[in-house]
Amino acid sequence: MASHEFDLIDWIARQQPLSPQPLRVGIGDDAAVWRLSDGSELLLATDMLMEGTHFTFPPAEPAQVGHKALAVNLSDIAAMAGIPETALVSAAFPRSRGDEFAREVMSGLMHTAERFGVAVVGGDTNVWDGPLVINVAITGCTTPRGAILRSGAKPGDALFVTGPLGGSLAGKHLTFEPRVRESLRLAESIPLHAMIDLSDGLGSDVRHLLRAGNCGCVLFSDRIPIATAALVTHDERTPLERALFDGEDFELLFAVAPDDAERLLAQGEIPLHRIGEITSTPGECLLQHPDGARRPISDAGWKHEF
Amino acid sequence: MASHEFDLIDWIARQQPLSPQPLRVGIGDDAAVWRLSDGSELLLATDMLMEGTHFTFPPAEPAQVGHKALAVNLSDIAAMAGIPETALVSAAFPRSRGDEFAREVMSGLMHTAERFGVAVVGGDTNVWDGPLVINVAITGCTTPRGAILRSGAKPGDALFVTGPLGGSLAGKHLTFEPRVRESLRLAESIPLHAMIDLSDGLGSDVRHLLRAGNCGCVLFSDRIPIATAALVTHDERTPLERALFDGEDFELLFAVAPDDAERLLAQGEIPLHRIGEITSTPGECLLQHPDGARRPISDAGWKHEF
Repeated sequence: MASHEFDLIDWIARQQPLSPQPLRVGIGDDAAVWRLSDGSELLLATDMLMEGTHFTFPPAEPAQVGHKALAVNLSDIAAMAGIPETALVSAAFPRSRGDEFAREVMSGLMHTAERFGVAVVGGDTNVWDGPLVINVAITGCTTPRGAILRSGAKPGDALFVTGPLGGSLAGKHLTFEPRVRESLRLAESIPLHAMIDLSDGLGSDVRHLLRAGNCGCVLFSDRIPIATAALVTHDERTPLERALFDGEDFELLFAVAPDDAERLLAQGEIPLHRIGEITSTPGECLLQHPDGARRPISDAGWKHEF
Repeated sequence: MASHEFDLIDWIARQQPLSPQPLRVGIGDDAAVWRLSDGSELLLATDMLMEGTHFTFPPAEPAQVGHKALAVNLSDIAAMAGIPETALVSAAFPRSRGDEFAREVMSGLMHTAERFGVAVVGGDTNVWDGPLVINVAITGCTTPRGAILRSGAKPGDALFVTGPLGGSLAGKHLTFEPRVRESLRLAESIPLHAMIDLSDGLGSDVRHLLRAGNCGCVLFSDRIPIATAALVTHDERTPLERALFDGEDFELLFAVAPDDAERLLAQGEIPLHRIGEITSTPGECLLQHPDGARRPISDAGWKHEF
């Protein structure tokens, strides 16, 4: 699930009686982890995209929205270092746009499903007078290394991201490549302590890792990779601010032991950016500038506004 | 999944390359059946409900819509004789109705989840300027008897429904009890040949059993149980027509061997109505009147209109 839902999800989590035994990880990570009878783990996540909130036509193309609807869910499975397997797709299609539009949306989704080896096993498609709403629920399995959670970062750990950040709403949010393969390769090569996908923006999502791991962090301002789209500033914010707060990057943020950080960089298999370090002060989130000055990062994330 | 989606779902099914091996049953049954590594089966289904299409406020109460959103999915699992386990809930809540409204919807859903032993393991809640849209994706497991499919009805089989039909839109569609327990008890006591839940209406849904089983049927007009709500006719249709075509009954329709039919009726554990018989003529769907006259049943189902 994405982390940009309002606190109703927390409220739901509080309403539930004691977690049933097969539920290893419930609400509050990128995907739930459900233990199956043979001891293997089922990953489960869902995301709903609404026209006018998560995309608009134009500039979005129908097929891009189909891609995005699945890709945000693939990103949730990637954040657990899981292997995506099945998808259930529900949609409310605008009557005014006709059947061809609906087919284009689904073609975009099916194409991405095929590329990632995901079986679309069910669905519920409807037509109505409202705007497009599309929901995907995804399942996946874990590798023998198990699911990587948001919790588990340790003081001294290195923090990495898998790609440049910011400016995603200029286009990347509709076309991004979920980091499924990268995540599996990472999990295979070194022990990942904690991982999350960046949907709300680095400055906001890093706090989930800190909260779950009861730790803090320092990010180095000159090491945060800034996407080209964030350099073309359209407002009063700096490129760095855009990289921190734009959101919808769908890159992975993860923590590994310092030795493993060196090993990863030496391998050079996956584009990686070492952007910071985990500290022991719970909840403290600092940005260190090249002059050595450290300032707290505000937790204002992306606000779902165009 | 419900069966009232338009033919896009068929189109999706055709787009998919050869079914991946773990997919035992894909699009086209009440739930998908995904074979897990230990040989057990995972059931998967999803349903999206939209304000103005599947309910309106009033007469619907927010909590009833939460109940319905989960219950239609529970009904899909019941139709497979499965045990529901987890649910993922996504919603787009109308900004104008405020937080309390959202909590009431979710309370209704959580209450039903608790009663049916379902863990709400994840979600994605959003707020927007549109009407309420709520999606549930459900998973379940099968009993040692396995999943009961839509296919499998044999000529001579008796056809049963689990309760009175018609007039559901007067209220039952918001409060119905999905037949999860009934389904499990039935599957335990006799071999079920084929089963489906009635979402579009008996006259329409029975055709899915006939198509999947390559058979026909005769329904006896005087044995079809008519719900009280369907007796209070609001239009030019007869109560029987309403029982056949109103839809949203969420009772189970199933086929069993004649001997087992006798056994079931003798047990008397579950309210059951023996309404017809499977015949060998593919696709033929006849209604037999008390005078012996047989007429084809039109396949006009429920049209999602209020």
